[in-house]
Amino acid sequence: MNLTDQEIARASTMRPINQIAQKLQIDEDELRPYGKYVAKLPLRLIDESKMIGKKLILVTAITPTVAGEGKTTASIGLCEGLNKIGIKTAVVLREPSLGPVFGMKGGAAGGGYSQVLPMESINLHFTGDFAAIEKSHNLLAALLDNHIHQGNTLNIDARKIVWKRVMDMNERALRDIVTGLGGAAQGIPRESGFDITAASEVMAALCLAKDLVDLKEKLGNIIVAYTYDNQPVYARELKAQGAMTALLKHTIMPNLVQTIEGNPAIIHGGPFANIAQGSNSIIATRMGLSLADYVVTEAGFASDLGGEKFLDLKCQYGGLKPDLAVIVTTIRALKSHAGVKFEALKEPNAEAVKVGLENLEKHIENIKHFMLCPVVAINKFYTDTDEEIDIVLKRCEALGVKAAISEGWEKGGEGCIDLAKVVKEVAESGKSNFTPLYNFDWPIEQKIETVARKIYGAAEVEYSLKAKQQIRLFNKIGLDKVPICIAKTQYSLSDDPKLINRPKGFTIKIREFDIAAGAGFIIPIAGTIMRMPGLPSKPAAENIDIGADGNITGLF
Amino acid sequence: MNLTDQEIARASTMRPINQIAQKLQIDEDELRPYGKYVAKLPLRLIDESKMIGKKLILVTAITPTVAGEGKTTASIGLCEGLNKIGIKTAVVLREPSLGPVFGMKGGAAGGGYSQVLPMESINLHFTGDFAAIEKSHNLLAALLDNHIHQGNTLNIDARKIVWKRVMDMNERALRDIVTGLGGAAQGIPRESGFDITAASEVMAALCLAKDLVDLKEKLGNIIVAYTYDNQPVYARELKAQGAMTALLKHTIMPNLVQTIEGNPAIIHGGPFANIAQGSNSIIATRMGLSLADYVVTEAGFASDLGGEKFLDLKCQYGGLKPDLAVIVTTIRALKSHAGVKFEALKEPNAEAVKVGLENLEKHIENIKHFMLCPVVAINKFYTDTDEEIDIVLKRCEALGVKAAISEGWEKGGEGCIDLAKVVKEVAESGKSNFTPLYNFDWPIEQKIETVARKIYGAAEVEYSLKAKQQIRLFNKIGLDKVPICIAKTQYSLSDDPKLINRPKGFTIKIREFDIAAGAGFIIPIAGTIMRMPGLPSKPAAENIDIGADGNITGLF
Repeated sequence: MNLTDQEIARASTMRPINQIAQKLQIDEDELRPYGKYVAKLPLRLIDESKMIGKKLILVTAITPTVAGEGKTTASIGLCEGLNKIGIKTAVVLREPSLGPVFGMKGGAAGGGYSQVLPMESINLHFTGDFAAIEKSHNLLAALLDNHIHQGNTLNIDARKIVWKRVMDMNERALRDIVTGLGGAAQGIPRESGFDITAASEVMAALCLAKDLVDLKEKLGNIIVAYTYDNQPVYARELKAQGAMTALLKHTIMPNLVQTIEGNPAIIHGGPFANIAQGSNSIIATRMGLSLADYVVTEAGFASDLGGEKFLDLKCQYGGLKPDLAVIVTTIRALKSHAGVKFEALKEPNAEAVKVGLENLEKHIENIKHFMLCPVVAINKFYTDTDEEIDIVLKRCEALGVKAAISEGWEKGGEGCIDLAKVVKEVAESGKSNFTPLYNFDWPIEQKIETVARKIYGAAEVEYSLKAKQQIRLFNKIGLDKVPICIAKTQYSLSDDPKLINRPKGFTIKIREFDIAAGAGFIIPIAGTIMRMPGLPSKPAAENIDIGADGNITGLF
Repeated sequence: MNLTDQEIARASTMRPINQIAQKLQIDEDELRPYGKYVAKLPLRLIDESKMIGKKLILVTAITPTVAGEGKTTASIGLCEGLNKIGIKTAVVLREPSLGPVFGMKGGAAGGGYSQVLPMESINLHFTGDFAAIEKSHNLLAALLDNHIHQGNTLNIDARKIVWKRVMDMNERALRDIVTGLGGAAQGIPRESGFDITAASEVMAALCLAKDLVDLKEKLGNIIVAYTYDNQPVYARELKAQGAMTALLKHTIMPNLVQTIEGNPAIIHGGPFANIAQGSNSIIATRMGLSLADYVVTEAGFASDLGGEKFLDLKCQYGGLKPDLAVIVTTIRALKSHAGVKFEALKEPNAEAVKVGLENLEKHIENIKHFMLCPVVAINKFYTDTDEEIDIVLKRCEALGVKAAISEGWEKGGEGCIDLAKVVKEVAESGKSNFTPLYNFDWPIEQKIETVARKIYGAAEVEYSLKAKQQIRLFNKIGLDKVPICIAKTQYSLSDDPKLINRPKGFTIKIREFDIAAGAGFIIPIAGTIMRMPGLPSKPAAENIDIGADGNITGLF
């Protein structure tokens, strides 16, 4: 009854990966295997003509709380449920980062009876994608420092280097460092730092690229620094993009694994959902749509972050047209939005549920802003009362929104049949008519204000002096006709993590911009953002072990 | 005629890896594939009973010069030649580091018609072993800094941290850094740095480990720092070894690939040959001996560095008994040792060859010190004259040492049949009676002086005050009964890189010691050593590219 995710995973019988491939009509010869249960898929499996009429289901959530929502678990469960009712469905997800695995959160391969397998491989190294992205990113950093050390013919101002290094680790001690100490043979001393690999622009570029050639062009367009006369310096001027792309030769290929019930899962890329787009690669989504009839995919955090970026940034770049969005909620999280403390979440509290519903309602509205039909999935927890659940179902009904209970964690696909039926009904209804919120060629301020007002519910947007100067620069250097990727806290619809539930009348303050000229977007920064997490006082790594038999324990 | 290594590799037809496995009677089910041409091998294939009577051939070389010796190429060629004369032979090698690939040297998978394939995969990421070792190493660093940040209950003196971070990259700017800047939320400011991943103690430990349990114990025994009262702090006190070993679950398995002629090559681990043991894992060598009749293996640099460490450190830890040592030389390198400048090496110069032979003679003596029969392999270059080669052959004959020309680069196995026949004859003669130079339980000074006098040809050994203090410490904390791994320049038998050929009457100066308490050795440091290389003014990375077809170019 109280099995850990890892125990459930180990008790499951995995099928050889060629059997999973067969379900998608992929010939065994097309697979690039990594062990018996994982394979990379060649890009030639993407076929525009086969994508016609396929259904793309986005899974998003209400604003995150300490209670957790179980979005990945719900996505995997929905995939199982859809397959159970006879729809050939693939779930397409991000790859886990090692930071959370060794830090607070543990693994990221679903939970309970809705997991992707082999969970240990997926959580630890997988097919080496993160390591390759890290190496590609850091090669550019090494070439940059070396260029300056060797004579600096590009006239780079070392104080204006914007390319840091990355490491897939929670490493607070590397956030702010000074490099190049030790004398003339060791390069030039300067301030720098490390971000976590998920925050790398190489990760963002890979996940927005069409193919190797497009990726190489994106990597060449990365701005690494500015010259003494403030001209941007591009990666291509360091002749870096060829070797950087060569390092990603296999990384660009999506990874095929399986769910506990033996359905196909495609896992590829893992960009952050605050400073980057927060969802798996365009290549993986398009491949899923070429191979399956339904694709269930997930975007990071709630509809205001990963959801909005998926719909505005990724769908426009990838030519994707989602058919509906599932909004995952839990009763506990709704109570949390009403201000109930963590310890009291297990107590029945119908009034708190009613209050917290305001947050869910806002996310429903957000999805509707994209002319998409929302479906609410109530991720059931054993402490939920019928009364509490009924309140949510009734409110959804009143709003004309379909809702269903999702019990994927406890029951796998069997627990998601109701949700699957609702999703099928809404997807086939043709009522969605996906329309992004903005066009890339709108002025920068108009794009930001549209997202802030419509999606966050802000009353106003304020720009710092620096942000205003940067907007003028972007207009000048032609970096204005790209999508925006607003970085803000995930814990609030506003830019203040303390404003839970549905804050109103607030101002979004754009402090400054980061740029991802290679990946193809700019990052308005609202509030403080974290590009490199730290380990907690009791790191999860302390509990991870491996026995003589090679069995890994302590990986949740 | 003038094909690059990469063009030759691409023109070769690779066999599916299960066919290579068949040659070693490995069942396809035992393989953990990484694509179609690479597989990891389970440790259960090591079988002590099958190692009896097998022949282990060490390939070493004369002192390196700018001319190059082609030791890896000779090793692969010898494997091809032995297979051609009907002996089931596997070549067992180290994995390449990305540092040289992007820096000066290029790939490290052999050359010409003596290469291991697929060379692009082997040179770029391969099966992710270096990345996993890097992550395992850096996880320990993160846990260490986090421990201090979270309250430092172990009383670690942050000024006495000896555990740095690693990156598989030529990164001079990371040699000396200050981490933890930016205020109390970012840890504690302290001096630190990065080594290249090949220099990681995790790499050294992996390559000396018997199995997962032994590896975990070694990792737990790593000394990371000292307390304020100078007590060593071990990785196990940070509860790091479980997660560190879990990250290496697959990395501990050797990698099977193929030579151009379709013979088995086992490639595993890549520790430095100055501050570490400089040869592939014990696991890989023992597996090779369990599966093939002859194993050809290579150790880094010349007989005084990788050679000595292979014979004293690795063979004693691994219970290995080599049957002979091949000393690779080139006519050009001999002339170089006579002081001939690089540009003039192509000119015939019989007198210079005679002078440079002194270096070869010393390495022949060194091998004999281990009661091993040496075989000299003259790696032929097109500028070599018959007269020059004849001088070498005659000198060897006078010394009673078998010699043969090796033309593996130009002709593959066909060019190594003579060498193979000589190797077979000597190996089967039973004249070798391998005896290590020292026992682990000798006093530290005696071990150092034995290597310095017998192998380097030093007249004396001098210890700095610090080194003497450290020896006292090691005696006190029980770190004296371990092998030594002397770090010194590879360019001279002495500790002065300018003293080429066969210097005499010199003093070896032990400046200080590094320790690898987990891997199980101490490192007397003679002269300056480099644990993190830098990129040259024209990094090889600038020429590496990848096309729309996924073909990588510029990788030599």
